[in-house]
Amino acid sequence: MVERIVILAGGVGGAKLVQGFTDSCAPERLAVIGNVADDWEFHGLWVSPDIDTVTYTLAGLIDETKGWGVRDESFRALEVLNRLGKDTWMQLGDQDLGLHIYRTERRKKGERPSLIARDIATRLGVRVPILLPTDDPVHTKVQTPDGWLAFQEYFVRERCKPAVYDVRFDGAESASATPEALSALGAADLIVIAPSNPVVSIAPILAVPGIRRAIERSKALRVAVSPIVGGRTIKGPAADMMRTMGQSPDVAGVAAHYRGLIDAFVIDREDRDHAASLTRDDLAVWVEDSVMRTRDDKQRLAERILRRATMEGRKRGAA
Amino acid sequence: MVERIVILAGGVGGAKLVQGFTDSCAPERLAVIGNVADDWEFHGLWVSPDIDTVTYTLAGLIDETKGWGVRDESFRALEVLNRLGKDTWMQLGDQDLGLHIYRTERRKKGERPSLIARDIATRLGVRVPILLPTDDPVHTKVQTPDGWLAFQEYFVRERCKPAVYDVRFDGAESASATPEALSALGAADLIVIAPSNPVVSIAPILAVPGIRRAIERSKALRVAVSPIVGGRTIKGPAADMMRTMGQSPDVAGVAAHYRGLIDAFVIDREDRDHAASLTRDDLAVWVEDSVMRTRDDKQRLAERILRRATMEGRKRGAA
Repeated sequence: MVERIVILAGGVGGAKLVQGFTDSCAPERLAVIGNVADDWEFHGLWVSPDIDTVTYTLAGLIDETKGWGVRDESFRALEVLNRLGKDTWMQLGDQDLGLHIYRTERRKKGERPSLIARDIATRLGVRVPILLPTDDPVHTKVQTPDGWLAFQEYFVRERCKPAVYDVRFDGAESASATPEALSALGAADLIVIAPSNPVVSIAPILAVPGIRRAIERSKALRVAVSPIVGGRTIKGPAADMMRTMGQSPDVAGVAAHYRGLIDAFVIDREDRDHAASLTRDDLAVWVEDSVMRTRDDKQRLAERILRRATMEGRKRGAA
Repeated sequence: MVERIVILAGGVGGAKLVQGFTDSCAPERLAVIGNVADDWEFHGLWVSPDIDTVTYTLAGLIDETKGWGVRDESFRALEVLNRLGKDTWMQLGDQDLGLHIYRTERRKKGERPSLIARDIATRLGVRVPILLPTDDPVHTKVQTPDGWLAFQEYFVRERCKPAVYDVRFDGAESASATPEALSALGAADLIVIAPSNPVVSIAPILAVPGIRRAIERSKALRVAVSPIVGGRTIKGPAADMMRTMGQSPDVAGVAAHYRGLIDAFVIDREDRDHAASLTRDDLAVWVEDSVMRTRDDKQRLAERILRRATMEGRKRGAA
């Protein structure tokens, strides 16, 4: 039986699948481990875009059209910052800033980021634990023709246009996993890697040594959902990034990326012809409708994964 | 001739007279010294209510109805802070928060508050220098039946309801005057103490030893405008405060408060019967329409003070 599920999720794509699971399971069965490596300081405030996207999604506050930020947002504080001469390419809305002000004040007091994130989610009515992989600072840097950029500079300011030659996660090697994330992974029967960008959303979570080790050693069924369908990313720069980094920008590339870490790989029906070539003794390939456009799509995909995982669990139990 | 004018101004009442002078004089002739002792940290952000009131007024951004804050303001960040469990009795609007975020970031970098205030005013189009009396922290504390409160706690949270037994200005004695304020005072022919609260708006400026000394020793004509008219304060708690502190809550009390520091005292026509008893060898009493309801009222009062000061200067020159 699949009782306890942990989902590794980055930003927009990850949040969608998380929402599918929350519509399918009681919140006590779920935990999310998010990405903190795209955190960055703007105007002296600590912004945590991926964690906030998951939080806003599960709180029902997300701007569904954009997939990030708070619905029905205004940007009046940012207009003043702009008038005062600040760079305001990072679109921080007024409601969003309220949250960043709150987080920053508590961080400056030296409180654990995990506890702050927990309290924010609870106050906003989220019942699924949103866990940080680490409370230590980890920063994704992206090597482009113009040199190394902070992730938000590449992603927002440069709109993902520069070619990406390399990616590194400053601070990850010496970062300690949080007890909350390790405990959730230890208790999990099913670990799902959401269809987030493997290179910049999931990799920095896995770059925390304790997290990677916990997943490698876990007896849970480990499933990744491909964020690449038909050689294109559903949203964001994953395919282009993989290409310029010399990886194959398709389901084969994603499967190679997660090799040794997963037991099953979910690909979209559009890629069904790759299923046979990807299947190995230690890797099942599940063909599903994996593109999540509607809330029903999200729930259906989550339920399919749960059903498949339950069947797989029985097979493993019988073996 | 009156060439250079320095105005000591607190919040709302002070800003009105400053605006009157800006409508009457070229900005090069003016400088304002504001009050920083009601500065306070909210949600980790450095808020400077009196300085901002002067800045917003001169920038044409002030909410004319309230007399403070930005016109046409929204409070969406504050709603989120409230939802996250924070006390939000201090009404910080979204536009206002943009400014506080800007100031806080630069202060955390160790920049001089004077330079930050100057840049804010310049960026918002203010041409009159708004000077800080000191760059050191000074904090007004108010003794009430419930103990010592920070000024904003008394003023905003408690809405000025508690009786005030005493007032102190933490940090003032050891605070250094800014070179900008000393230089402006040194060059002034006319120093005007605006009709701000003498006890909590003007006193903390004068509590900075270098500022008080510069005014005491100045050869400029020094004029104060009474904020109390007919035994009532135009706005705010000055009269009540003076009463509970054992001072006379009328023009006589204000005159006593500024004794030795001013050469002329402006009272409203309503208080004209006090003129004779207040007049001394070293104190002229000027009866004027001093209640500023409209923009014309402000300009008229500033022009009357300028004309009187010019005449007084001629008398002094002749003496």
